[in-house]
Amino acid sequence: MSGSSFGKLFKITTWGESHGRGLGVVIEGCPAGLPIKESDIQLELNRRRTGQSKVTTTRKEGDQIQIMSGVFKGKTTGTPISLLVENEDADSSKYDLIKDLYRPGHADYTYDMKYGFRDYRGGGRSSARETVGRVAAGAIAKKLLARERIKIIGFTRQVGKHIAKNIDYKEIENNIVRCPDNKIAEKMINSIMRARKKGDSLGGVVEVIAKGVPAGLGEPVFDRLDADLAKAVMSMPAVKGVEIGVGFQSAIMTGSECNDVFAMKNKKVITATNNAGGILGGISNGMDIIIRLVVKPTSSINKAQDTVTQQGKKAEIRVEGRHDPCVATRAVPIAEAMVAITLIDHLYRNKSAQL
Amino acid sequence: MSGSSFGKLFKITTWGESHGRGLGVVIEGCPAGLPIKESDIQLELNRRRTGQSKVTTTRKEGDQIQIMSGVFKGKTTGTPISLLVENEDADSSKYDLIKDLYRPGHADYTYDMKYGFRDYRGGGRSSARETVGRVAAGAIAKKLLARERIKIIGFTRQVGKHIAKNIDYKEIENNIVRCPDNKIAEKMINSIMRARKKGDSLGGVVEVIAKGVPAGLGEPVFDRLDADLAKAVMSMPAVKGVEIGVGFQSAIMTGSECNDVFAMKNKKVITATNNAGGILGGISNGMDIIIRLVVKPTSSINKAQDTVTQQGKKAEIRVEGRHDPCVATRAVPIAEAMVAITLIDHLYRNKSAQL
Amino acid sequence: MSGSSFGKLFKITTWGESHGRGLGVVIEGCPAGLPIKESDIQLELNRRRTGQSKVTTTRKEGDQIQIMSGVFKGKTTGTPISLLVENEDADSSKYDLIKDLYRPGHADYTYDMKYGFRDYRGGGRSSARETVGRVAAGAIAKKLLARERIKIIGFTRQVGKHIAKNIDYKEIENNIVRCPDNKIAEKMINSIMRARKKGDSLGGVVEVIAKGVPAGLGEPVFDRLDADLAKAVMSMPAVKGVEIGVGFQSAIMTGSECNDVFAMKNKKVITATNNAGGILGGISNGMDIIIRLVVKPTSSINKAQDTVTQQGKKAEIRVEGRHDPCVATRAVPIAEAMVAITLIDHLYRNKSAQL
Amino acid sequence: MSGSSFGKLFKITTWGESHGRGLGVVIEGCPAGLPIKESDIQLELNRRRTGQSKVTTTRKEGDQIQIMSGVFKGKTTGTPISLLVENEDADSSKYDLIKDLYRPGHADYTYDMKYGFRDYRGGGRSSARETVGRVAAGAIAKKLLARERIKIIGFTRQVGKHIAKNIDYKEIENNIVRCPDNKIAEKMINSIMRARKKGDSLGGVVEVIAKGVPAGLGEPVFDRLDADLAKAVMSMPAVKGVEIGVGFQSAIMTGSECNDVFAMKNKKVITATNNAGGILGGISNGMDIIIRLVVKPTSSINKAQDTVTQQGKKAEIRVEGRHDPCVATRAVPIAEAMVAITLIDHLYRNKSAQL
Repeated sequence: MSGSSFGKLFKITTWGESHGRGLGVVIEGCPAGLPIKESDIQLELNRRRTGQSKVTTTRKEGDQIQIMSGVFKGKTTGTPISLLVENEDADSSKYDLIKDLYRPGHADYTYDMKYGFRDYRGGGRSSARETVGRVAAGAIAKKLLARERIKIIGFTRQVGKHIAKNIDYKEIENNIVRCPDNKIAEKMINSIMRARKKGDSLGGVVEVIAKGVPAGLGEPVFDRLDADLAKAVMSMPAVKGVEIGVGFQSAIMTGSECNDVFAMKNKKVITATNNAGGILGGISNGMDIIIRLVVKPTSSINKAQDTVTQQGKKAEIRVEGRHDPCVATRAVPIAEAMVAITLIDHLYRNKSAQL
Repeated sequence: MSGSSFGKLFKITTWGESHGRGLGVVIEGCPAGLPIKESDIQLELNRRRTGQSKVTTTRKEGDQIQIMSGVFKGKTTGTPISLLVENEDADSSKYDLIKDLYRPGHADYTYDMKYGFRDYRGGGRSSARETVGRVAAGAIAKKLLARERIKIIGFTRQVGKHIAKNIDYKEIENNIVRCPDNKIAEKMINSIMRARKKGDSLGGVVEVIAKGVPAGLGEPVFDRLDADLAKAVMSMPAVKGVEIGVGFQSAIMTGSECNDVFAMKNKKVITATNNAGGILGGISNGMDIIIRLVVKPTSSINKAQDTVTQQGKKAEIRVEGRHDPCVATRAVPIAEAMVAITLIDHLYRNKSAQL
Repeated sequence: MSGSSFGKLFKITTWGESHGRGLGVVIEGCPAGLPIKESDIQLELNRRRTGQSKVTTTRKEGDQIQIMSGVFKGKTTGTPISLLVENEDADSSKYDLIKDLYRPGHADYTYDMKYGFRDYRGGGRSSARETVGRVAAGAIAKKLLARERIKIIGFTRQVGKHIAKNIDYKEIENNIVRCPDNKIAEKMINSIMRARKKGDSLGGVVEVIAKGVPAGLGEPVFDRLDADLAKAVMSMPAVKGVEIGVGFQSAIMTGSECNDVFAMKNKKVITATNNAGGILGGISNGMDIIIRLVVKPTSSINKAQDTVTQQGKKAEIRVEGRHDPCVATRAVPIAEAMVAITLIDHLYRNKSAQL
Repeated sequence: MSGSSFGKLFKITTWGESHGRGLGVVIEGCPAGLPIKESDIQLELNRRRTGQSKVTTTRKEGDQIQIMSGVFKGKTTGTPISLLVENEDADSSKYDLIKDLYRPGHADYTYDMKYGFRDYRGGGRSSARETVGRVAAGAIAKKLLARERIKIIGFTRQVGKHIAKNIDYKEIENNIVRCPDNKIAEKMINSIMRARKKGDSLGGVVEVIAKGVPAGLGEPVFDRLDADLAKAVMSMPAVKGVEIGVGFQSAIMTGSECNDVFAMKNKKVITATNNAGGILGGISNGMDIIIRLVVKPTSSINKAQDTVTQQGKKAEIRVEGRHDPCVATRAVPIAEAMVAITLIDHLYRNKSAQL
């Protein structure tokens, strides 16, 4: 048991380290007959990739996907799909210098406490590079969802104190921070550039909307749809909180404000408002699923910080190198992937419950 | 697969409906030799029970626990522990009147969409009575944690706009809202009584602290400790959000503010601050685990609300009866139980990783 | 993790000890809407019950089943079905005498080595009484299979050296050893009575046939249908071997003898012979599933045997009391239940693979 | 859910097809700090490899193993170990000719019925080449077992009617059929060569012994050690039966013959005989684990056989090419791997039960 798997009927297992030979994912439970090409997956990987713009790290990663199994003559066979991205030869010599220093905000110390031994190059298994496998699997999940007319939309809701207000989905990919509010996007970009200059970093909030999700997804009690979505995005690096619908706002609402009353529309049951974010009692109600996650400011900053060594001595560290000053904007495709994987899993689980 | 199980090495499976014959839980993975009495479990159930005070529903539930298996001569045997609470004969005739009406904020509609058929009496399986099994299992988890010197403290952080500031754990059980800030407690109580008078309800925030958790708990990638804690509490009824440490506050922090720098104390690695809430890279770092969850205002309110019937006709509903005007305060022992179950599971998982 | 669960989409978890308060099973994954009555389940439990005839133990067990949850107005709700059999007050004083003696062939010693502590009354958790929960769950599995026109037939193929040859399914329940060959049945009965007189016991072979299983059940690689069936019946008490189709006979066959050639019948692909026992490459081929399991002679015998005490001293033991002289005949309904549970689980898994 | 995973605490997931880009396995739950080299794994793969001798297929497979993740500076890190074997460019044109013909004894028909679409080249996912991943993972399992002084010995017990009698483990790798009885080995070889000449194939029995297994492994009820071992080896291609200890012989034994009486030896509890094959009540008793599995004669034979086409037309097939005339002898290292994986999983499960 390594905690590297996610999902039940649609299940992914990721493997690989930042500076090892490669990274990959094994996908189980994808039905036979789905047309899938490497370029479909590459498209999503490119959205996750580093070096996309001035607000991301300038480090370049090729991330060429290879389908190793489970696809024959362009279609899935129903057997495990193995996807592989080989790591390019990376210079890991700089990590030799800090291998004994615990980077604040990073998993160096906790991995040492857990395993007693760790691949320190680029964070090893704790590196955000692990999410390559998630995004690749998410590309397949999205294709399966599209067959059911379900669409996933992700964007940056907040960077620092700047919060998107006028939401226009078409604007999302028109700016380098994936913000659906063009005016706020500009402010976000300026904030990020200022933080980078200071060697510092910024936090943010990512929002994901799922449209077209039928009512009935999610299981009562523990495997509620919201509980599984929460786990899905909280398992992403740097995420410290998650909320569904009005989320934490509901603390200051009354029942009569918060309840979404039911109504009929086109002979379908709907709710007049969507404070619930599309989920009631852990089960989807047919309205948009709305989930928000907070991404803490990047831990790697170019400022001197106190720390200790593996041997327990006081020390100072300054994490040089090319790091994203605000990782939230790059978290968007990862969050979309995690939501997509959770939804397709629950869609299949729900169908199996109705046999 | 019904989504009624939680945990891997320490695993619970709950069953039962609000107005059925009874409710129960099967606990797997409790080691042999733990002394356990029915009264140990009853103590925790009494904290969850209705009718405790003027701020909770006046409905009385006996909730007498019976240990059906897995304990011999007062000690666990290592085999499944089955716990049973028989339901007292409840009058479910009042539910006959509203069985075709979808109560806003409730799971009536979503259960119908999932299963096509539902025990409508008192919410059936979606009732918060299901948490009886969780709290009972949590009592055993707490005993196992105590052997490892780990302590769980839960309290009400917020009700409506009233937020506890001066935290004194000793005050928690001294007031009927479980608030560690005595002055705020009074304000919370007054707010709740006002809401009740209006037939309305209030939301709130519950906080759980785990003290003494060793570094190393949690697994990389998906089964991170924070991800599993998030799922644990998001699987509770009415919870719409969760955060760890500074949580959503981290969106407006810089990296240099948010990072907890490492230091030495008594020859142990600690962090100078605890913004991370005790978890780095998904693994505990030895500091207090801090988790907060938002509980939406009780959906059952004594006010007229629009709704539709099972047959798709417009209707009006007013949920009469004795409901908690603020369910957050009763969620405290449930949240403690879920955190305890998650921690003991990960403690065993971590030990198994170090063989 | 306690190893007390079986199945994935249709999943059962049993709990309880021989002389504890009761025994039970929680069934997850039964779809909503199945009509189910306690009497349906009781029927199967009565087939498993002791004291049925002169060839079984004379000990009487009431085994009254109670449906505790998951059924409303006579139909399943899709949520966990909890079934309970309360133990009648049994005199366990006789077990006090042998509690320090390891009974040969029993699990006393191995449970002590695993748990260090054990409910010694009547074998505790290792008692065959645990199978009450399996048979009860099997009754529901059989009802679900019947909806798909799948039928399970179990019988005693062999007792000692007597092997049924002329198979007539209609004869099975006409004799007290559940043998489909009436002439051999008589010989089996005589052998068992002779063994009982000598205070000894006999082994036997049980066969289960599943008719009407569609092609496509079972998953490639590990969760093959034959692998899961093998686990299902090997998990029964006293079973020491299992075979599918010609089974161990295939060791002395050639490929040209053993291969079942394909043919067409009523526009359906069939095989001319069924040496494969209905499974090819781990997946059902539409022919009868044929599985045989060997049940060792009852370990409890009324003869003096050498043994040791818990304290490591040499001793002698004679297990008095009313034990089945040949447990194979009572294993028939248990084997049927395990096969039924495995098949319905794989039926649902297969459907979910074809979404 | 694809059924391609095995194990709980030590868990493997295999992927890949016979003529795809490669085959691999992801191993989860291997503790950190185990020294492991590619050559350790290669050694075991070479034992499984084709083209080893005149009794195996003459087809050559390189099977060069690559460790892709989870190992750093020659030691495991505790994170998933990904192992990859790239397929050499195989000529799959000959499979085009028979892609519409269902080969008797093979999974062509059942895969079509399950998935509706299949990689027909060399059996695709149903090919025995899938076991490359099992043997590679087994090499690591064996290293972990060796640290606990547990040793796995596998050999060919029977080929056709020739059964090894005088067992000398040292002889096993001295002959090309892996038979521990040198005289019988010769007879086996002759039989196999005769069968090959006729274009036919032979069945056989493989036996695996595990020495040094401590008492206490296995879990009560479903996840018994014997049940999991049965599943492990029944999940191998071509296996039609499995038995533990005296196995099917116990049908004709009496309880007084079959029971192994307990005795003391060097202050340890032992049994005087080992009819139980080292397992009582599903839990190891410290004696040798003994498991036997029957391997049916190779389905691919160079003789004309009746069959049908995918389109349901009568046809004749003759499977030409270089096939093993008796696959049992090559099944030995695969059976060892499956037993090793099951044992290390249960060893870790048992340790976790004793926390």
